[in-house]
Amino acid sequence: MNPKLQLVSEIGEFGLIDLISADTITDSSQIVKGIGDDCAVLRTADENYYQLFTTDMLIESIHFSKLIADEDIGYKAITCNISDIAAMGGIPQNCLVSLGVPATIEVSRIERLYQGMKQACREYYVNIIGGDMVRSPQGIIINVAMTGTVNSAAVVYRSGAQTGDLVAVSGRLGLSEIGLLLLQNNVEPTSAYEPFFAKHCRPKARVELGLKLAKGGATAMNDISDGLASELNEIAVSSSVGVLIDEQLIPVAGLPSAVEALLDKTPLQCALYGGEDYELVFTIKPSDYALLDQDTRAELVVIGTVTEELSGLWLRDDAGQMRKLESRGYNHFSD
Amino acid sequence: MNPKLQLVSEIGEFGLIDLISADTITDSSQIVKGIGDDCAVLRTADENYYQLFTTDMLIESIHFSKLIADEDIGYKAITCNISDIAAMGGIPQNCLVSLGVPATIEVSRIERLYQGMKQACREYYVNIIGGDMVRSPQGIIINVAMTGTVNSAAVVYRSGAQTGDLVAVSGRLGLSEIGLLLLQNNVEPTSAYEPFFAKHCRPKARVELGLKLAKGGATAMNDISDGLASELNEIAVSSSVGVLIDEQLIPVAGLPSAVEALLDKTPLQCALYGGEDYELVFTIKPSDYALLDQDTRAELVVIGTVTEELSGLWLRDDAGQMRKLESRGYNHFSD
Repeated sequence: MNPKLQLVSEIGEFGLIDLISADTITDSSQIVKGIGDDCAVLRTADENYYQLFTTDMLIESIHFSKLIADEDIGYKAITCNISDIAAMGGIPQNCLVSLGVPATIEVSRIERLYQGMKQACREYYVNIIGGDMVRSPQGIIINVAMTGTVNSAAVVYRSGAQTGDLVAVSGRLGLSEIGLLLLQNNVEPTSAYEPFFAKHCRPKARVELGLKLAKGGATAMNDISDGLASELNEIAVSSSVGVLIDEQLIPVAGLPSAVEALLDKTPLQCALYGGEDYELVFTIKPSDYALLDQDTRAELVVIGTVTEELSGLWLRDDAGQMRKLESRGYNHFSD
Repeated sequence: MNPKLQLVSEIGEFGLIDLISADTITDSSQIVKGIGDDCAVLRTADENYYQLFTTDMLIESIHFSKLIADEDIGYKAITCNISDIAAMGGIPQNCLVSLGVPATIEVSRIERLYQGMKQACREYYVNIIGGDMVRSPQGIIINVAMTGTVNSAAVVYRSGAQTGDLVAVSGRLGLSEIGLLLLQNNVEPTSAYEPFFAKHCRPKARVELGLKLAKGGATAMNDISDGLASELNEIAVSSSVGVLIDEQLIPVAGLPSAVEALLDKTPLQCALYGGEDYELVFTIKPSDYALLDQDTRAELVVIGTVTEELSGLWLRDDAGQMRKLESRGYNHFSD
C-alpha cells in the first residue's frame, strides 16, 4: 500500500515524526539537538549554557475533559512542559501560551485556566511572556511553548545509555492513570484517594531532581509522560542498547481494595502504559549512582540494567520469564 | 453585570488579554517587553542582541478552510509568525510546530502541511527545531512558536510613535481579504486574479524591509495582520498619541470591474478591516523618512501623521470630513 494513503491512526505519532523530521534545519550553527528528544537544545552567546525549547498541545476531549477543574487544566498545561525541561537536566524560564476557546465560553473559565497556569509558573519561577488568543469551533485548546536553560556540560539526552548502566525511576508510577480512572468512575474524592487525584490533577515536575541527576552523571533521561514502557523504549532505541527491567522492582501504586475492584487495569499496567506521571526515568553508571547523596537516592528506585545482549525493552517477571514490552504507552492516535 | 459572567464574544480578544496579563512575570531580570507587542523581547548573554518570541494558533474553520491548499496553510502558519518578528525589526531563527489532526486524516495531507511550512522556513532561513503531534477531535490545528534576534539598539515597539511623525505603510492593502472573497465566490484562478490569490495563499513577510526601517529610525511598527485600522489603533493607544490618516493616500487594491461586482466590500474596507496582508505600518520622523534610500521608499506610501490634537485613529475623506475608526479589524471572537 502506498504509505501516503495511510491514515495517521495507522502509523501513529512516532511514525509521523519520522516522516516529517527531514529537511527541518536550514542553519545548523546554533543547533545542538533538533527534533527527537524531550527538548531542542541550542547554543547561546555564553558557551557554558544551552537554551532548551519544548512545546505541548492539549485539546479538550482528547487530553482532558470536564472531569477536571479549569485551574487544574491550566496547571497541567504548564507542568508538562516544565517536566520536559527537567528531563534534560534544565531549569525552565519563559513560556508563550496560545489559547483557543469557543466564543460562547464564560470569561471566568478563561480566568480560571490562567490562574492554574500562573500558579504553576510561580512555583517554578517561569514567566508567561506572550501568547495568542483565538476562537475555536468547539472545546478548549491550549498550546504552551517553553524555554529553559541548562549547563552545557551537564545536559542529558535520551541517547546516552551505556551497557552496564543501572536503570532507575523517581517516585511511584501509575498514580495519574489511576486518578483518571477514579474520576471517570465518579468516585468521591475522599482522603484515601487523594494521592491519585493529586497526581492526576496537580502533577509536580521534577526540576530539582533532574538537576541533581544531570550533575550526578545520568547518561540518558526521559520524563514519564507517556508511560514507563514508551519512555524506556525511546531510551533503548535512541541509545542503541537493550534495557531489562524487573517487574517486582517497579514502584507501582498500592491500591485500597475498594479501588482495585473498580479498575479494569492492574497497578503494573498503569505504571507501564498510563500517562502523565511526570516522574523521571534515567540510566547511570553504578559507581555514579552510589555517589548520589542519600536524600536523592531516597527518591529513587533501581528497576533494571542496560545490556547489549538484548534489543529494545524487556520485562522479567517474578518467575524469571522475560517478555518484550511494546513501545506504545499513551497512544496519541487511537483510543 | 458581573464581568466574570460575560462571554468571551462580548469582551473580545483585547479585553481578554488585558484581563489575563497581570502577574505573568515572576523573574523580570531577562524581560525587556512581555505581553503587549508583536513579540516578547528578552535580554541575552550578548548585550548587543535581544531575543524575540512570538506564537500564533491557526484553527481549521476559523482561520482557514478547505478552500486553500494544505501546502498554503502550512506556509501561512510560518509566515504569520515571521511577520511578527519583522514588525520588531528582527530576523527569524527557530520555531516549534504543534499539530493537532484527526485520527482519520491521510498521512499525505500532513506531509503537504509540512512541505508548505518547510518551504517558508527555507525562504527565511528558519529552523524547525521541535514540536508536538496530537490527535484532534475535528479539523486541523497548527500552533507555531518562533524565536528571532534583533539588534538591541534598533528594536521597534508599538509604543514609540511621537507627535509630528509620519505614518507610512508598505505594499498595497486589502489584497488578502479580496483573495479570500474570490475563493469563497468560487472564482476561477485566472491571471487577472493571481495577485489576490497569491497574497491570500502565499503571503510574504517583510523581514528585509523591517530591518531597514528599524535601522532607519522607525519609532513604532506593527505588521498588518488584522487590518490597518486595528494595527494603527494599537500604535495610537500604546504610544498615547492620535493618528490621522488620509483616505485618498491609502494604497488600496485596484479591482478588475468583474471582481468589483462580486464583492460586497469596497477596496478601502478590505484595506482597513481585512486580515492577513502582512505588510508593515510604521511611524517615523519626517527627517528620517527623507534619509531612507530610494529603493526602500519605493516600497512605501505615507498615509498620515501622528498628532497630539486627537486621540485614537482618525480617517479624513476626500471632502476633508474626519471620522474616528474603530479598532476592530479581524475580530477573533465574532463572525
